[in-house]
Amino acid sequence: MRATTQELVERMKNGDRLALAKLMTIVENREPETAEIMSSIHGRGDSAIIGITGPPGAGKSTLLDALTTQLRSEGRSVGVVAVDPSSPFSGGAVLGDRIRMQKHFLDQEVFIRSLSARGNVGGLARASRDVARLLEAGGKDVVIVETVGVGQSELDIMRLADTVAVVLVPEAGDTVQAMKAGLLEIADIFVVNKADRDGAQKIKNELEQMLHLRPPDGWDVPVIMTVAVEGTGVAELVEALDTHREHLGASGLGDRRSAAGRHEEFLAVLRDEIGRRIQGAIEAGRLGPIIDRVEKGEVDPYGAALDAVGDPGIWSGMSGAGSEEPD
Amino acid sequence: MRATTQELVERMKNGDRLALAKLMTIVENREPETAEIMSSIHGRGDSAIIGITGPPGAGKSTLLDALTTQLRSEGRSVGVVAVDPSSPFSGGAVLGDRIRMQKHFLDQEVFIRSLSARGNVGGLARASRDVARLLEAGGKDVVIVETVGVGQSELDIMRLADTVAVVLVPEAGDTVQAMKAGLLEIADIFVVNKADRDGAQKIKNELEQMLHLRPPDGWDVPVIMTVAVEGTGVAELVEALDTHREHLGASGLGDRRSAAGRHEEFLAVLRDEIGRRIQGAIEAGRLGPIIDRVEKGEVDPYGAALDAVGDPGIWSGMSGAGSEEPD
Repeated sequence: MRATTQELVERMKNGDRLALAKLMTIVENREPETAEIMSSIHGRGDSAIIGITGPPGAGKSTLLDALTTQLRSEGRSVGVVAVDPSSPFSGGAVLGDRIRMQKHFLDQEVFIRSLSARGNVGGLARASRDVARLLEAGGKDVVIVETVGVGQSELDIMRLADTVAVVLVPEAGDTVQAMKAGLLEIADIFVVNKADRDGAQKIKNELEQMLHLRPPDGWDVPVIMTVAVEGTGVAELVEALDTHREHLGASGLGDRRSAAGRHEEFLAVLRDEIGRRIQGAIEAGRLGPIIDRVEKGEVDPYGAALDAVGDPGIWSGMSGAGSEEPD
Repeated sequence: MRATTQELVERMKNGDRLALAKLMTIVENREPETAEIMSSIHGRGDSAIIGITGPPGAGKSTLLDALTTQLRSEGRSVGVVAVDPSSPFSGGAVLGDRIRMQKHFLDQEVFIRSLSARGNVGGLARASRDVARLLEAGGKDVVIVETVGVGQSELDIMRLADTVAVVLVPEAGDTVQAMKAGLLEIADIFVVNKADRDGAQKIKNELEQMLHLRPPDGWDVPVIMTVAVEGTGVAELVEALDTHREHLGASGLGDRRSAAGRHEEFLAVLRDEIGRRIQGAIEAGRLGPIIDRVEKGEVDPYGAALDAVGDPGIWSGMSGAGSEEPD
């Protein structure tokens, strides 16, 4: 590792916010130092990593704001990863939401980072995980990862959390859509926000009925009622989050989730690195003649790729290709 | 290839719709036969592959319907790939839109296939490309690929098209957002739909001004005004699409785009196949001890993956792993 990167890691561990921000940028852009940085901060810290997701309009950003205020009032430091995998056409609303977090910007014990899908969405899930890990290594007591929508990419991002809170609002059909969107499976806690509206009790009942259909696994998913804009119910939500964290430790579920996460992370890095080496092999001209014929249409891309993978010559030397052709 | 798959391909080439549908299902699910099917239909047919994209609410589905009607009235056969990479929470509106295409369902010269993001979004771009290729191999004169929104995944999907039409509506800020969303770069044709509304001429002017800022490349992007719900302007749109197709042929741009597409396809298949072989190596237990240590947290996932890739033992024999451990 370059001395400067190593220095950044040390400074970040000592609470240097600028170093933390710089490391996040390196990791978000997946610069070559990423693997070494992530490797050097290996080992879980003490952070509770919490995921917040739910449909647009559920008031997630307001809840995030209220949750941060509550945690700060208890003396806990907070890291926030606000992830937006959605289209640039919805950008306006999201930016507006973020402004609500403004009052925390001057608080040295709160660190907020926004990530958006500039590149591919798969990369966004990895960047989110790595940024959350950096916040953990930086010593934040609680790291909250919030996503804007409820698509497949949001579900993928939520897998990095220890505890997932799914936020809904009292609106007809919301529970059915939550089921369809796969939110029932990933929720450790349900939040019915805007609970002063009509239908709040109805959606709570519906959720509780649906939760009875889940195979029992030792954890009863609570349904917490909040009015985030007034702060109502937010202390109860923090209590539920803490209770789930105790459950993770006591039941061994936390260890199992961590092991599964590490397994996935390993495979993702392996795939990335192999991709980089293929790219290196191409740049070194080792696949040149094949690619040339593919581009000219002389051979079909599918057949040529299968042939290439079946050729031991492509693979031999691949183990060292990365060091010969750095990114 | 299994005799039945080969038979399906033959029947599909002879116009059998059921065989075409079955092949699409195999390819969409990325079953093991996918590569062989795609390899066996290699070589471009005569289809014009057209992409239609734009923000939600621009009337793309109505335009698609009107375009299909126009093309059919000219005696051309039409294949449609309707792709929805968006969240399950927006499902309702999309289904409603699809119903507008219903009148074409009984037309033997129209084939409509809907794809949605059940798995990962990257896979969706590949499945869209393969399904479009199948429609081309099935002899459709025009293949239209329509996407629902304007995120990164939609941009990726549009790369499979020969000609991209971007649909906007006369609403304040639409052109600015189109620029932000990267639509200006990919548009070969702009369509201002709902052009009977106020502001249609204004958005046309704005688009033309912005298009002047594009570096000249021998093609002047036309801005076509339509009222799709009445069919107004749709004949002009078809004319513009045909003119762009002639340009692709005459300028050599079509060949360059095809070559770039084949290059990408080759790399995507290569990555997929290598992923399958890694999975095979894991299932065969060759990475077992490392993964075990990663799961237990004894080594960090990043460092372990980098070590694994650097180990020649992991790579040796990988060229044959696919045939030993079929998917």
